[in-house]
Amino acid sequence: MKPQHALILGAAVMASFAFGHAVAKQEARVPVVRIAELEIDPAQLGAYTAAVKEEMETSVRVEPGVLAIYSVAEKEHPHRLRFFEIYADETAYRAHLASPHFQKYVVTTKAMIRARKLIETVPVQLSAKGK
Amino acid sequence: MKPQHALILGAAVMASFAFGHAVAKQEARVPVVRIAELEIDPAQLGAYTAAVKEEMETSVRVEPGVLAIYSVAEKEHPHRLRFFEIYADETAYRAHLASPHFQKYVVTTKAMIRARKLIETVPVQLSAKGK
Repeated sequence: MKPQHALILGAAVMASFAFGHAVAKQEARVPVVRIAELEIDPAQLGAYTAAVKEEMETSVRVEPGVLAIYSVAEKEHPHRLRFFEIYADETAYRAHLASPHFQKYVVTTKAMIRARKLIETVPVQLSAKGK
Repeated sequence: MKPQHALILGAAVMASFAFGHAVAKQEARVPVVRIAELEIDPAQLGAYTAAVKEEMETSVRVEPGVLAIYSVAEKEHPHRLRFFEIYADETAYRAHLASPHFQKYVVTTKAMIRARKLIETVPVQLSAKGK
């Protein structure tokens, strides 16, 4: 483990955010959490999974502002995937969308995804081991 | 930061799980990820938020098997909260449900929650800083 990475996660993720207390000069440092719900073509689930796992691993490894990307399948519907993504701030999130590995993923998986729902969120509290 | 906590997170969360490869003797060590979608009575949102934040903080601090609990509000519907919870394994998840702080939270917030949807999941990949 690289201590500086653990510290980045600790500092950014362990913080607690109350409703309605964001002020303009703090907004740039507020973590961005994005939720995505994807329905994958069942016949292409293996290929999709391989592509997204590579993209997730690369993003967390090479992008300092990508704190975590979690992907799970609904137990009752294995082709319905849910993503929970934590970025250090809005700038980090935009940098991720523009990254070559994310753009490659978009092109590779375009025909594998049947439906996509993106949910913008406001963090309430992000509590994780590593404090 | 306590190094052992970071190591626990690193070891358990950074692992990668492929579809259909779970075998009986490995299941006990597979992280459990639970997603919850809650609709809170808007008039009681402040009280609910205070209660759940305390419960989350306590759980991650005192329970070795509670790796992370994240709570976010939908930007368009602030009274709709989404939780993404990572436990070390099924035993840790059951211990959390039986813990005094969780039971206190259940009683305290019962009348504040209008609707609750729990989604069981199978981890695809859990990538987080701290490797």
